[in-house]
Amino acid sequence: MTDLAKWLGIQWPLIQAPMAGVQDQRLALAVCQAGGLGSLPAAAVSLEALSEQVAALRAVTAAPFNVNFFAHTAPAEDAVADQAWLDSLAGEYQQWQLPRVAASAAPRQPFNPLAADWVSAMRPAVVSFHFGLPAPALLAQVKAAGAKVLASATTVAEAQWLVQHGADAVIAQGWEAGGHRGHFLDADVSRQLGTFALVPQIAAAVAVPVIAAGGITDAATVAAARRLGAAGVQVGTAFLRTPEATTTALHRSALASDRPTLVTHLYSGRPARAIATPFLEQVGPLAGCPAPFPRASAAILPLRKAAEAHGDDRYTSMWSGQNRSGCRALPAAEICRALAAGWDVPAG
Amino acid sequence: MTDLAKWLGIQWPLIQAPMAGVQDQRLALAVCQAGGLGSLPAAAVSLEALSEQVAALRAVTAAPFNVNFFAHTAPAEDAVADQAWLDSLAGEYQQWQLPRVAASAAPRQPFNPLAADWVSAMRPAVVSFHFGLPAPALLAQVKAAGAKVLASATTVAEAQWLVQHGADAVIAQGWEAGGHRGHFLDADVSRQLGTFALVPQIAAAVAVPVIAAGGITDAATVAAARRLGAAGVQVGTAFLRTPEATTTALHRSALASDRPTLVTHLYSGRPARAIATPFLEQVGPLAGCPAPFPRASAAILPLRKAAEAHGDDRYTSMWSGQNRSGCRALPAAEICRALAAGWDVPAG
Repeated sequence: MTDLAKWLGIQWPLIQAPMAGVQDQRLALAVCQAGGLGSLPAAAVSLEALSEQVAALRAVTAAPFNVNFFAHTAPAEDAVADQAWLDSLAGEYQQWQLPRVAASAAPRQPFNPLAADWVSAMRPAVVSFHFGLPAPALLAQVKAAGAKVLASATTVAEAQWLVQHGADAVIAQGWEAGGHRGHFLDADVSRQLGTFALVPQIAAAVAVPVIAAGGITDAATVAAARRLGAAGVQVGTAFLRTPEATTTALHRSALASDRPTLVTHLYSGRPARAIATPFLEQVGPLAGCPAPFPRASAAILPLRKAAEAHGDDRYTSMWSGQNRSGCRALPAAEICRALAAGWDVPAG
Repeated sequence: MTDLAKWLGIQWPLIQAPMAGVQDQRLALAVCQAGGLGSLPAAAVSLEALSEQVAALRAVTAAPFNVNFFAHTAPAEDAVADQAWLDSLAGEYQQWQLPRVAASAAPRQPFNPLAADWVSAMRPAVVSFHFGLPAPALLAQVKAAGAKVLASATTVAEAQWLVQHGADAVIAQGWEAGGHRGHFLDADVSRQLGTFALVPQIAAAVAVPVIAAGGITDAATVAAARRLGAAGVQVGTAFLRTPEATTTALHRSALASDRPTLVTHLYSGRPARAIATPFLEQVGPLAGCPAPFPRASAAILPLRKAAEAHGDDRYTSMWSGQNRSGCRALPAAEICRALAAGWDVPAG
């Protein structure tokens, strides 16, 4: 088995999960300095802002880091679908006395030629993709820039597809993981595999290193992931309450509670794991008629702003994995140390 | 931590998952003789048949065994719901040229006074429940008969409820598990936890032994479950192709394939994990309007019989967990030996 840490140039194979909207280079830096691989999520920021984050990171450390891009296909414009989604929320808009006009949604550009040129110029050591891989020419450009390429799989078939199409390592994203499900071949959530079933089956099916993601929150779960055949781990939720994350107070408060998580497509148009809210439960987390990803978020945004002004988180996409026991209000370095204790167990 | 094996009177803490419809005492006996706890599923057979199974088992071994009952609340008669479900299958009935009359479904009685009297008379060492626990008086009768009581939880809240209501140990049934989801407090499948997140959180929340279920198929997954805090494991799918199981040829063939599993309520009215079929995919595994559990199965049965006569498994409930890599056509004793290798790892 490839020594993933050596290959990535880090001390032990911990990857900080890129989490759009709740972090910038400060969290990435803290993880890099603690011996893991810090990540910068590109999905919700401009390339200019991303360049500034890279500069800030490189001003302090020469350690490798990961930049994460979404590789979805942008949906065609569809005013009818957008309007139907907005109309279905009429009762909510009325309740908050809002004019029924959707906001402009945060940019969630798929990886495109501009992003590829950015990679060529900035040369991050690692680039990871969610929702599949970009077109072959763009992926070739990323590899020509020297980046190691990671990508997320939620099934064995997706892992095999990613390896066949050029991924250097596979992130096995189990059902437990917070945020957007990375599936790109099979959208039926009832088919999504738990970490416990996904990691060993992908590890048996592909020849590249497999990074376990979903439910890894402390030393015991790191050790268990290693037993399942993982060459490394990707951890997100455990970092959400660190001072280095930009997680909002509302989100931090929900993370500190025992509120359950669920998988919903209401926030963005794609299934993602978030903390349950009354809005999600009333509509049904996978019911409703959201516009295609990422356009559904535009109609939610005005509601979110209005409710948040009253301290109400019902429309707020508070991503979280299924195990928050390691998600504590501690510096990221301490979270890293707690996780590292689990990797020292001799692999069987 | 309680030594679960010692408490149960077995050699190591392996529980053969009770699997209604695909096994009788022969599989239970093989597991008992291999040092685990064999189980008899009561849900789909009469108490008379169950007595015969117990007699056959006891004729050969004095080892303890488990008898499993469903503890659901039987739904009220609802001819309208039954008819609506049958009507929704009109196209299927037409395709198979069947008169649109539902068959009598297989009996799936909830645990009742007759069953409690049966337990008092037969005195099995262990009784396990799915879908919650029976009413307090009935549970007291089971305990008065000397039975240790196990019950399935799919969330931390369900585990706490079971312990508060008298369960002696909790089976943490992860999302990966085959067959019926055991949830009884929260029916939203998008909230169901993967084994990897469920086991450590239940183990931290309750003081009784926690048995991991879902995705445990070989030595590596047994070892991982132990790392997650499990006091024992419950394994079902790995035994489905053994000669001691009564699994049909159609089901065995599907198990030997790489067909994915999904969670569907179409077969019985309750969500359960089964191998994907064209019927489930066309309707949508969690769509449709099945009559309440267990009555939905009545309308499926004629279709199943008609299709199976042509070797077609589209209506056949072929339960399977998400990891079949350990599900091999080998004697149950060999499956037990392969699993046992994973328990010898020193717990950390």
